[in-house]
Amino acid sequence: MNPTPSDAQVAALNRRIVLAARPEGAPRLSDFRVETGPVPEPAHGEVLLQTLALSLDPYMRNLMDPVGPGYAPPVALGETMVGGTVSRVVASRHPDLRPGGLVLANAGWQDFTLSDGSDLLPLDSGSAPALPPSLSLGALGMPGFTAHVGLLDLAQPRPGETVVVAAATGAVGANVGQLARLHGARAVGVAGGADKCRHAVQVLGFDACIDRHAPDFAQRLAQACAQGIDVYFENVGGAVLDAVLPLLNPGARVPVCGFIAHYNGPMEGASATDQRPALLATVLQKRVRLQGFIVLDHYGERFEHLRRFRERMHRWIEEGRVHAQEHVVDGLLQAPQGLIDLLAGRHLGKTVVRVAEA
Amino acid sequence: MNPTPSDAQVAALNRRIVLAARPEGAPRLSDFRVETGPVPEPAHGEVLLQTLALSLDPYMRNLMDPVGPGYAPPVALGETMVGGTVSRVVASRHPDLRPGGLVLANAGWQDFTLSDGSDLLPLDSGSAPALPPSLSLGALGMPGFTAHVGLLDLAQPRPGETVVVAAATGAVGANVGQLARLHGARAVGVAGGADKCRHAVQVLGFDACIDRHAPDFAQRLAQACAQGIDVYFENVGGAVLDAVLPLLNPGARVPVCGFIAHYNGPMEGASATDQRPALLATVLQKRVRLQGFIVLDHYGERFEHLRRFRERMHRWIEEGRVHAQEHVVDGLLQAPQGLIDLLAGRHLGKTVVRVAEA
Repeated sequence: MNPTPSDAQVAALNRRIVLAARPEGAPRLSDFRVETGPVPEPAHGEVLLQTLALSLDPYMRNLMDPVGPGYAPPVALGETMVGGTVSRVVASRHPDLRPGGLVLANAGWQDFTLSDGSDLLPLDSGSAPALPPSLSLGALGMPGFTAHVGLLDLAQPRPGETVVVAAATGAVGANVGQLARLHGARAVGVAGGADKCRHAVQVLGFDACIDRHAPDFAQRLAQACAQGIDVYFENVGGAVLDAVLPLLNPGARVPVCGFIAHYNGPMEGASATDQRPALLATVLQKRVRLQGFIVLDHYGERFEHLRRFRERMHRWIEEGRVHAQEHVVDGLLQAPQGLIDLLAGRHLGKTVVRVAEA
Repeated sequence: MNPTPSDAQVAALNRRIVLAARPEGAPRLSDFRVETGPVPEPAHGEVLLQTLALSLDPYMRNLMDPVGPGYAPPVALGETMVGGTVSRVVASRHPDLRPGGLVLANAGWQDFTLSDGSDLLPLDSGSAPALPPSLSLGALGMPGFTAHVGLLDLAQPRPGETVVVAAATGAVGANVGQLARLHGARAVGVAGGADKCRHAVQVLGFDACIDRHAPDFAQRLAQACAQGIDVYFENVGGAVLDAVLPLLNPGARVPVCGFIAHYNGPMEGASATDQRPALLATVLQKRVRLQGFIVLDHYGERFEHLRRFRERMHRWIEEGRVHAQEHVVDGLLQAPQGLIDLLAGRHLGKTVVRVAEA
């Protein structure tokens, strides 16, 4: 158990978790280091933010590699790990941001940071008073928005179609399945283990969920998708994709948002033979639309698209139509272990680190 | 030289070229057999068609495999090879089709066939009086329409963007490059050999064309695409795709219409290692849209979409804005060698077999 520092402590000190070494394969605790320093002072036009909750996400593994994923620069050795946060404005020299307000921010893995306000989304404007602020890191934030953009904007499932998503109890997958159901589609999940599959069906409302560790996984997926697969929301790659490809229906849409199976090394999850010709043959013969997307592209002018998404999603959560599950890691210093556990698939729902009391 | 049969002979006899054996790798002449039989008689509601020109196309290799490409059944052993034709109605018991008219048909590799009219597009309705009827198998037909659908409907190049197409002097590629130029994009071709590359630039008007046999092919392609690649019209796979992937710009569109590199066997053109994870990583990081399509899907209600395309393309050809090159193979019995040569890349432009005089 990691003690939460007292207010006096956090006021005196900024703790940062920096990248100490570049992992080979799965990250280890020794790849991270804690550094402490003074709390920075806002210049004119800046605010000082205190981190309340930190988001942990699979993409962070990519940013630990020497060559980043292209859409964002890698974290330099010795630099603070990056990440989305719910933060409180604790001091302001910015004309529009007052102390006390909550914002969606990019403070990274640390207690305090400065911002000029350009990357902040105010959260206390009355849109979500009854829900925990940390949901803005999950169902109401980047992972929920990723599900929304990939499924609804790009794949556009029609009523009665079959939508498959892996990591079905993860921060993105759980929302994909629930949004698919809300739009009249059949949702078939894939998850690692019987407990997760039960959760997907009983709590999240998936029509079926298949354990990817089952020896007859491919056959069971085929049985659960007797009418074929119309939308495959790709976030894992590897063996799940192998089982999905033969089941794709003509005209299938495959939004591509990530590859957890490959994040710990480019060749992990690779076959001994070249599967690219077979993939392209499927794309051609089934007229598949494979569409990569980075949710950052879709934040739009001053978060306007995100803002509209948040309003819809907030209503669905309040109405009980979307279940927003969180796995809370207690304390900033537990973030490294939290990311290691997340990448190993040990969490249910969205993983957030509680850094300070809201 | 294959003598053209006299009118008396063709009236008496139907020659069919049938699939004699399933090729392993490149087809050989022994995979085909000529059979003769009586000219069939049209039943009520049918027409008798005489083949004037037969289209040869790479997809025919796929139909020779025991398991077809999915969008069309494979040719059975002993059955007539299938193919698009320009045919003349020589006898009619159909209310709407009169003897003497020309139609775009699917007569296959034979002199005569029957049709109930449902798969015929009349050609003599005044839309293309000044152009050779066989162009309806090339720039005005399936290959031209494939270029049109893939490039203009799916990829939608914007002025100033860079479009890359392989098999640049082939029936589809030549149209892709010329249509790209017509829409203000830069067209960079890839072709096998210096002669083809010269033809692409000097006759077809490509901005550049790179010889895929050059030892420094990838570097030369990169130099020709200094602003990156916005559209890659995929019709070959293999090494060209390897060179293209690192050059794709964010938001690139990749319509997928075929894989000549893989047609003689699923693993031909495959790498020793699995390139699927790398392809998917590129799709994700560059937000690529990879879109398989089968042009048959786009013929639309009673060929309406094809009809509109033909009107536009006919005007461009007449105005000299699109150059429609044909490689004419003389005589039905030369069709097998014609397909073998086509697959080996020995032809410039669209390959058609002249079966009878128009």
